[in-house]
Amino acid sequence: MDSLSFRIVPEIPEIVPGDDLPALFAGRVPAGTGVLVVAQKVVSKAEGRCVRLADVTPSERALELARSVEKDPRQVELVLRESRRVVRAVPGVLITETRHGLVCANAGVDLSNAPGDDVAILLPLDPDASAARIRQALGRGRAVIISDTFGRPWREGLVDVAIGVSGLAPLSDYTGTADRSGRELQVTVMATADQLAAAAGLLMRKDAGTPAVWVEGFEPKGSGGLGDLLRDPERDLFR
Amino acid sequence: MDSLSFRIVPEIPEIVPGDDLPALFAGRVPAGTGVLVVAQKVVSKAEGRCVRLADVTPSERALELARSVEKDPRQVELVLRESRRVVRAVPGVLITETRHGLVCANAGVDLSNAPGDDVAILLPLDPDASAARIRQALGRGRAVIISDTFGRPWREGLVDVAIGVSGLAPLSDYTGTADRSGRELQVTVMATADQLAAAAGLLMRKDAGTPAVWVEGFEPKGSGGLGDLLRDPERDLFR
Repeated sequence: MDSLSFRIVPEIPEIVPGDDLPALFAGRVPAGTGVLVVAQKVVSKAEGRCVRLADVTPSERALELARSVEKDPRQVELVLRESRRVVRAVPGVLITETRHGLVCANAGVDLSNAPGDDVAILLPLDPDASAARIRQALGRGRAVIISDTFGRPWREGLVDVAIGVSGLAPLSDYTGTADRSGRELQVTVMATADQLAAAAGLLMRKDAGTPAVWVEGFEPKGSGGLGDLLRDPERDLFR
Repeated sequence: MDSLSFRIVPEIPEIVPGDDLPALFAGRVPAGTGVLVVAQKVVSKAEGRCVRLADVTPSERALELARSVEKDPRQVELVLRESRRVVRAVPGVLITETRHGLVCANAGVDLSNAPGDDVAILLPLDPDASAARIRQALGRGRAVIISDTFGRPWREGLVDVAIGVSGLAPLSDYTGTADRSGRELQVTVMATADQLAAAAGLLMRKDAGTPAVWVEGFEPKGSGGLGDLLRDPERDLFR
């Protein structure tokens, strides 16, 4: 693999609930082997994962938490419904672990770019399944990654990561292969799906309606899903 | 920006201390605007950041820590010399904060790919300065990122991140710009340099001697360095 190219999938219309994303991408992605990276938000919209804030009644717990994080109690209610546990809560910041096992701000519940001022967008219920449906429409030799934009401990700024994967091993294991000088490489398991998501994110301008990127030069191998990318809590030294 | 391409810089020889990396890249990088991503290891080698383990005498503290993490006490001694503090230490894992402020395994002190079995490679003393020297040789309109491969909390697998930057703002701030529906985007500061490093990392096979990648389609803007990417400890909810 000597080169990789990333291209915006052109002319993606504003997505609304019920849109057939697999058909839409099948008609717009070039022929040949490659990886399609799709921003979570359009997947969630197409799958109807939108909630009118006016329809949300915050629980006592949400009201209390909303006061301490200084957020809309209805958004906080949705965050709690989407979460297994609260990781951190301070004014302006609410980090939770979602039911999928993702650790991120607001459980991925997003108010920006929503189709109306009072609508929240939730993460897809099963992002691997969302990816698989799109992949099926694309056909063989093509993989799909659903990406979202997350903050990180220790480092400033957000990066895009994979939250759903189909048709591709999310991790590439170089453990045991020899390096140039013949020494066996130590544990070197690369998070390939996250690296692809990060790269595609460079083209997904948040303000420009460019929610899908086609990657050429990368031959998808293996299989797997989000679970491969989530660190076993027992092995996570950072919890 | 509709597309990006990433290409391996061809025919990089095995690097040894004293090699003139800026001249080497100036002769190999294509003309035009773009970003050169260089793996930390070749920068460290060229800068002579190599230490023979036989020359290292472990301190009492290193001997004790080496026992608890089950690593070579000489490597642990080097890790401690490179670090401000130990973040986590359990059998098989030693995570520290380096003098640069990077939180990573073994303070970036690496035994694999070293030019000889008993040599450790340390991170560059000042990776921004290393990037600046290469950039100066490349000329205007071109930026340089020094990358390294780090583990992360919560997620499996390693990703490449920027540890040195020249000629490019490491963060891109979209805060306050309007999204498609006119709503002001909330805090959206993307770690552009890390996304570029991650993408380039897809082509840097650890076993293949491909330590530099040229990015076309990305116009470098602004300026900054590693400091922009390090989260202020006071603002880091994960410490």
